[in-house]
Amino acid sequence: MPSVEALISLNNDADIHSATEDNGLLEQFSKTRQQSVDLCRPLEIEDYGLQAAAFTSPPKWHLAHTSWFFETFLLKPFCKEYTVFHTAYEVLFNSYYNAIGKQYSRPQRGLLSRPTVNEVMKYRHHVDQAMHALLKVAFHEHYSERKEVSRRVQLGIQHEKQHQELFLTDLKYSLSKNPLYPGYSSIKNTSYQGEADLLRGSQWVQYQGGLFHLGADQDSESFSFDNESPAHQVYIEPFELSDRLVTNAEFQVFIDDGGYHRPEFWLSDGWAEVQREQWRQPLYWLEDEGCLMEFTLYGEQSRSPEQPVCHLSAYEADAYACWARARLPTEAEWEFAAVQQGQGESISGQIFQPIPAENNIHSAQLKQLYDSCWQWTSSAYRPYPGFKVGAGAIGEYNGKFMCNQWVLRGGSCVSPANHLRPTYRNFFYPRDRWQFSGLRLARCI
Amino acid sequence: MPSVEALISLNNDADIHSATEDNGLLEQFSKTRQQSVDLCRPLEIEDYGLQAAAFTSPPKWHLAHTSWFFETFLLKPFCKEYTVFHTAYEVLFNSYYNAIGKQYSRPQRGLLSRPTVNEVMKYRHHVDQAMHALLKVAFHEHYSERKEVSRRVQLGIQHEKQHQELFLTDLKYSLSKNPLYPGYSSIKNTSYQGEADLLRGSQWVQYQGGLFHLGADQDSESFSFDNESPAHQVYIEPFELSDRLVTNAEFQVFIDDGGYHRPEFWLSDGWAEVQREQWRQPLYWLEDEGCLMEFTLYGEQSRSPEQPVCHLSAYEADAYACWARARLPTEAEWEFAAVQQGQGESISGQIFQPIPAENNIHSAQLKQLYDSCWQWTSSAYRPYPGFKVGAGAIGEYNGKFMCNQWVLRGGSCVSPANHLRPTYRNFFYPRDRWQFSGLRLARCI
Amino acid sequence: MPSVEALISLNNDADIHSATEDNGLLEQFSKTRQQSVDLCRPLEIEDYGLQAAAFTSPPKWHLAHTSWFFETFLLKPFCKEYTVFHTAYEVLFNSYYNAIGKQYSRPQRGLLSRPTVNEVMKYRHHVDQAMHALLKVAFHEHYSERKEVSRRVQLGIQHEKQHQELFLTDLKYSLSKNPLYPGYSSIKNTSYQGEADLLRGSQWVQYQGGLFHLGADQDSESFSFDNESPAHQVYIEPFELSDRLVTNAEFQVFIDDGGYHRPEFWLSDGWAEVQREQWRQPLYWLEDEGCLMEFTLYGEQSRSPEQPVCHLSAYEADAYACWARARLPTEAEWEFAAVQQGQGESISGQIFQPIPAENNIHSAQLKQLYDSCWQWTSSAYRPYPGFKVGAGAIGEYNGKFMCNQWVLRGGSCVSPANHLRPTYRNFFYPRDRWQFSGLRLARCI
Amino acid sequence: MPSVEALISLNNDADIHSATEDNGLLEQFSKTRQQSVDLCRPLEIEDYGLQAAAFTSPPKWHLAHTSWFFETFLLKPFCKEYTVFHTAYEVLFNSYYNAIGKQYSRPQRGLLSRPTVNEVMKYRHHVDQAMHALLKVAFHEHYSERKEVSRRVQLGIQHEKQHQELFLTDLKYSLSKNPLYPGYSSIKNTSYQGEADLLRGSQWVQYQGGLFHLGADQDSESFSFDNESPAHQVYIEPFELSDRLVTNAEFQVFIDDGGYHRPEFWLSDGWAEVQREQWRQPLYWLEDEGCLMEFTLYGEQSRSPEQPVCHLSAYEADAYACWARARLPTEAEWEFAAVQQGQGESISGQIFQPIPAENNIHSAQLKQLYDSCWQWTSSAYRPYPGFKVGAGAIGEYNGKFMCNQWVLRGGSCVSPANHLRPTYRNFFYPRDRWQFSGLRLARCI
Repeated sequence: MPSVEALISLNNDADIHSATEDNGLLEQFSKTRQQSVDLCRPLEIEDYGLQAAAFTSPPKWHLAHTSWFFETFLLKPFCKEYTVFHTAYEVLFNSYYNAIGKQYSRPQRGLLSRPTVNEVMKYRHHVDQAMHALLKVAFHEHYSERKEVSRRVQLGIQHEKQHQELFLTDLKYSLSKNPLYPGYSSIKNTSYQGEADLLRGSQWVQYQGGLFHLGADQDSESFSFDNESPAHQVYIEPFELSDRLVTNAEFQVFIDDGGYHRPEFWLSDGWAEVQREQWRQPLYWLEDEGCLMEFTLYGEQSRSPEQPVCHLSAYEADAYACWARARLPTEAEWEFAAVQQGQGESISGQIFQPIPAENNIHSAQLKQLYDSCWQWTSSAYRPYPGFKVGAGAIGEYNGKFMCNQWVLRGGSCVSPANHLRPTYRNFFYPRDRWQFSGLRLARCI
Repeated sequence: MPSVEALISLNNDADIHSATEDNGLLEQFSKTRQQSVDLCRPLEIEDYGLQAAAFTSPPKWHLAHTSWFFETFLLKPFCKEYTVFHTAYEVLFNSYYNAIGKQYSRPQRGLLSRPTVNEVMKYRHHVDQAMHALLKVAFHEHYSERKEVSRRVQLGIQHEKQHQELFLTDLKYSLSKNPLYPGYSSIKNTSYQGEADLLRGSQWVQYQGGLFHLGADQDSESFSFDNESPAHQVYIEPFELSDRLVTNAEFQVFIDDGGYHRPEFWLSDGWAEVQREQWRQPLYWLEDEGCLMEFTLYGEQSRSPEQPVCHLSAYEADAYACWARARLPTEAEWEFAAVQQGQGESISGQIFQPIPAENNIHSAQLKQLYDSCWQWTSSAYRPYPGFKVGAGAIGEYNGKFMCNQWVLRGGSCVSPANHLRPTYRNFFYPRDRWQFSGLRLARCI
Repeated sequence: MPSVEALISLNNDADIHSATEDNGLLEQFSKTRQQSVDLCRPLEIEDYGLQAAAFTSPPKWHLAHTSWFFETFLLKPFCKEYTVFHTAYEVLFNSYYNAIGKQYSRPQRGLLSRPTVNEVMKYRHHVDQAMHALLKVAFHEHYSERKEVSRRVQLGIQHEKQHQELFLTDLKYSLSKNPLYPGYSSIKNTSYQGEADLLRGSQWVQYQGGLFHLGADQDSESFSFDNESPAHQVYIEPFELSDRLVTNAEFQVFIDDGGYHRPEFWLSDGWAEVQREQWRQPLYWLEDEGCLMEFTLYGEQSRSPEQPVCHLSAYEADAYACWARARLPTEAEWEFAAVQQGQGESISGQIFQPIPAENNIHSAQLKQLYDSCWQWTSSAYRPYPGFKVGAGAIGEYNGKFMCNQWVLRGGSCVSPANHLRPTYRNFFYPRDRWQFSGLRLARCI
Repeated sequence: MPSVEALISLNNDADIHSATEDNGLLEQFSKTRQQSVDLCRPLEIEDYGLQAAAFTSPPKWHLAHTSWFFETFLLKPFCKEYTVFHTAYEVLFNSYYNAIGKQYSRPQRGLLSRPTVNEVMKYRHHVDQAMHALLKVAFHEHYSERKEVSRRVQLGIQHEKQHQELFLTDLKYSLSKNPLYPGYSSIKNTSYQGEADLLRGSQWVQYQGGLFHLGADQDSESFSFDNESPAHQVYIEPFELSDRLVTNAEFQVFIDDGGYHRPEFWLSDGWAEVQREQWRQPLYWLEDEGCLMEFTLYGEQSRSPEQPVCHLSAYEADAYACWARARLPTEAEWEFAAVQQGQGESISGQIFQPIPAENNIHSAQLKQLYDSCWQWTSSAYRPYPGFKVGAGAIGEYNGKFMCNQWVLRGGSCVSPANHLRPTYRNFFYPRDRWQFSGLRLARCI
């Protein structure tokens, strides 16, 4: 385990810059860390502590926790003389890693006015400096733990990207509780300017199915989470998918047809939730003096009919599909179609709202795979056959959550770049609505 | 739709006794209805109203609801002049059929001191008489709806058998809240008298897997619930199953090793439940002045080391398997093995306690498939591919519950006779412990 | 301490029958015990276990607890060879006496299907027999603890009378949860047949107040609870009281004037309760196809306009008084007026419904002091100056409840005979509505 | 109603500065407003939004609400051309005045990251400027509503002082939830430097009682809240009070004697709260590696034995008194003694911790009346005889809270100057512990 000083002295050693992929990792690390801070630009200091529900975390906590992750899984084990920034942070910013130790009570994260934002930024800087030093040493070709360090840095980067999306979804939820409806961004929502294909309706795209290799190859060079493996054979019957996501206008028809009042469309647990929470529309829909509005990261905005319906629970997605005499796709069907399409993620960039599908009338391609809303599947989030929980605390990353949740596939308008792929398994409880979650219909042929 | 009078007059017509299977159905009906009443023999009048938790129902309610089922799905639609016993019962004894109408609040079923037991017994008799009349007509070869009636009667019989098991599991739960620990049966628990194979340990039985036809054939003559269909192809990797269930003695080792205090063995939701409910042992385990006891349907009894551990949640079953470096079987694996074994149910009869596995040392057969405890699988309870929810109220029987629950396979010591089969899918929430639920270990080869 | 055998042998000693008042006590005891059993006549066995809320107790529990009281406070300490009926009953039927030991969970009293009704009746008999023997010895003039035994027997008798009222109020509450609205008594409610004075309106009766001796004299021969002492001087300003209770018709005007929707009439905690519980009318008011009904101990009945409004919380009583530009009387004012009137209790007997006031137009007497509804006062239930909690478990009878509750004065149509007096302090939480509680208006002059 | 411009032009009119008391009011207003802002000096921006429980409010909210009070009750009704700062604030910063309109959900005040601290400070400034203008006009001798304006300004000033104390007690509570235990003030707690009289023990001071005029004279020049009136005669029996408050050392003896585990000392509702909340010591007591500590506004500090025990619920105060064979004083007794002593408030100034009593061994004076901890009395908070709730929204200030709470008398180390008097009635629920609440023992002579 090299000391910090050794790490810094090694900094001048030309040898360590040899391997291209390693330089790439350092660059990726720096860029990702910077992106988290960039997300904070529109915030007031007062916003950093907001936590409107136990299932969300304050912006400040996300900033600290992602640093804690590198400190805990890289700096402490691999950097002998690393000095922790503050001993109490081990508990304060541990999310759920029991193998590391105790955790500060999750629903009370909003009560941590201290450390201040300034102190958290210093913490990030402290971690970044040490990580730079470590990475410069660790990629030296003779460094014995090079492979493990590299694996963990990649995991830490992807972990931070996941928190960038949570940063925005959590913040949206918290801001929505303020009757002033403050926007995260004051920039006017130019959103979609093209010609939407609403009037045309959606098209069904057909797939023959058959034997399919589901999941990611663990031995591949490219990163994937452990929950995407092991890849394994499954048999898929012929099916078809809608070429675009269900829109606000379409979902309004469901509502107008009594959707939220007719139990015949709902799973029993979903119907109970509808009663308990008095759901009558998607999470952020509003009416303001008779106008159809919605709360967005740009504050209160007109609700666009051609925009994909978003912020649905799986129960609502399932009920809509039932009403529409269709169903949700399985995760295998979704991945089969996405792999076939070949196209990777295409992130919308600066628009933090789902955008309408383009009007490519002659294309039999799936639209909105990654750039609008996560798409609920009908698959329970369970381990793939042969899945083994990893040893130690890092094994807690995914495995222990594999029950009671549902798989979502794709990506959303608030997903960070270089993060998504066809095998990616996102997962939330079927009652969860605060993610950018929508739906794409499926049918048996 | 024949009138009741017509039904009764037809009673003398020799023709209707022709079809063997139909007579068989009437006999099955009568026998099943009688078995429900037989279960009541040991009860005091005061016991019929007991409801110790919202997830249980009082004995009296089971007796009435199973009658309501025949009244609602057979007598009202198929028997024109049938007179309902009491109009309020339509609401009082409707469990969850929204298509039928409102339901009396489930957690308050214990507050229905009226109708009295006597009145409920009269209700049963009223329904039985009308059903006899209907069945005699309906099996006449010229009766146009013969097939649908037959299908529904079979469903009603199997439905009543399910409630016979719930009658006992619910009652056990309610009696357990009484510090006097009254037994359901005062008959001494002779239980198992053979030679248990505890000392020998369990054996692994190997299966090659491969392509397998999972589920029940809908067109078969023999009865199955809709959730067992459609049968479909799945591919199964080689695996092995333990030849017997995990015992109390084995589970005690898990506890002694800190099982309930070590998060590393638990799913995250399971660990939260352990903390919330302060679980430290299976549901009915007791200590009484230093002796290891358990609450049974025979009252408080010594806990037998060689008996299968019972009344576990899926979380506990999963944690045990993790601790034992094994896993739960999938429902496909379980069914594959059960079908291969060929052996059908073998019900223990009058012993309402799980019994130890017999010491057949040279046999590579699975023991305790149906007669001891339901066996948690690792499979989420979801519809089989191509499953369609049936039309109307009967469609609510199973389909709407296909989320958030886990599949259990096999049967238990309180399952009624002529009810179980290899394709049977039982399902409960993973936190549920009041069923006779245990576990059988599995491993990949 | 005499043995049971000694007690029985003393039975023949003529001397013990000398003192008139002691024979009277035995007679009172026997009569009171019999009255509790008489209250059960209309019940079905199934009714004895009903407990619809934690604040109520099942009929069977009242029967057992009142016996436990004599066993615990008389038979165990004063009767050396008394054999307890069942050791577990010490815990099962202890209501709240921490000095005696643990108590079975109050909200779960409805789960005690065993002991059966039959066994509880045997328990009563067992206690009664031993009490008879004890009382015959204890009243022998040479018996040293005669005074303490006598005091406790009187307390036990009055305690049982309190439970007779609770028996009915609790049962009414539990039966009301059954949509069949079963009556406790099937006898037609002949209720009030006279000429009601509704049209005339109420009259104000004036009182000059001044120095007043509030409370009961502890050294008096006649029984009173400890919470009625010490008697002490208070000064009362001139005031006036309504000669009768507020009626259903009057309360309806309050409702029609938006009473339940206008916070200006309500105490803040009361208004919060109205929102939380969605109160819109008194507890048992019903509408049935447009008819104004109420649930009574005779089942569902027409709501009578001239009947006193009943089953109000103190919050509702206070809000009504505020709306009517009056106020609730203090307990001192109520007692001042009741003492002046001189008239003692006059129990309605077999009519378990509050009755309208008689039309004695020329009388300036208060009506309905004891025979209709308990009357909420504005006084917090706190100890009188100089009050000392008694030693031992009996000290827990009243003292520890002297906070957060409000005093009610008078009596009700379900109060037993020989139980009430001007100094009697009844007390419940201001949110409680299941007692027969109404109101009488007061004003400053 | 003068316009704002008129108000400002009048600013130069020499006449308006004539009346001394009016100038005094303007000075009091300005000083009080400044004191609220001064309290914020040690805060970080992140602290202003903290709300750790529904019963507390964030610092920012206190700052805004006290401004809202002047805006609502003075500027809107008396200042014709006043422009509201932000229309949404009417709802956001209304605490509980139903007559004004809706209120933003109290438990969610911590979710208002906007308006920012900066905006709230601008709001204060806006209100202050308009108030200055109004006050200059309103005190002109010919101004017709001079008296009402003056009365309301006085109320607004005292209202703001109450919130200054709440600002500190609420903040202390919220900071205590942070495991870093940040202090409100980083200044070293020099606290008490004198010679404490712990070793000497307390002395009893005797009072003869008799007829006493309880409460404040409504027609007096000096300010009092409406709940202190009407003054009225009460009779008080002879009694004695402890000359000082109960100390930490004394309370430790109670704990060591099993105080929190012995129900015999507790009111029933108190005992239930002890079980439910698992209370084992006063609110802010801590142990840190074996050292006796407490959380204070200076962060974590050593617990001083001679300091008054503080942050007790009324239940704990009552239980301690019971254990000590004494009782709590009534509010009449407390006021009787305080009036006799003649001495007014003597505020500790900058020390935000209760201070030990001085060792004036020969004095029979009560110490710590106003400067350490509020003192729980045994009196339920109810209206004085003849109390009338005021008309309009201001009538909601006190009257509607007069139930279920208990009276505290005196003042505390965080009470602002010029706020306290012998007739002052503070009130909280008996379970509340987050105020600086302690106890002084009383006894009958």
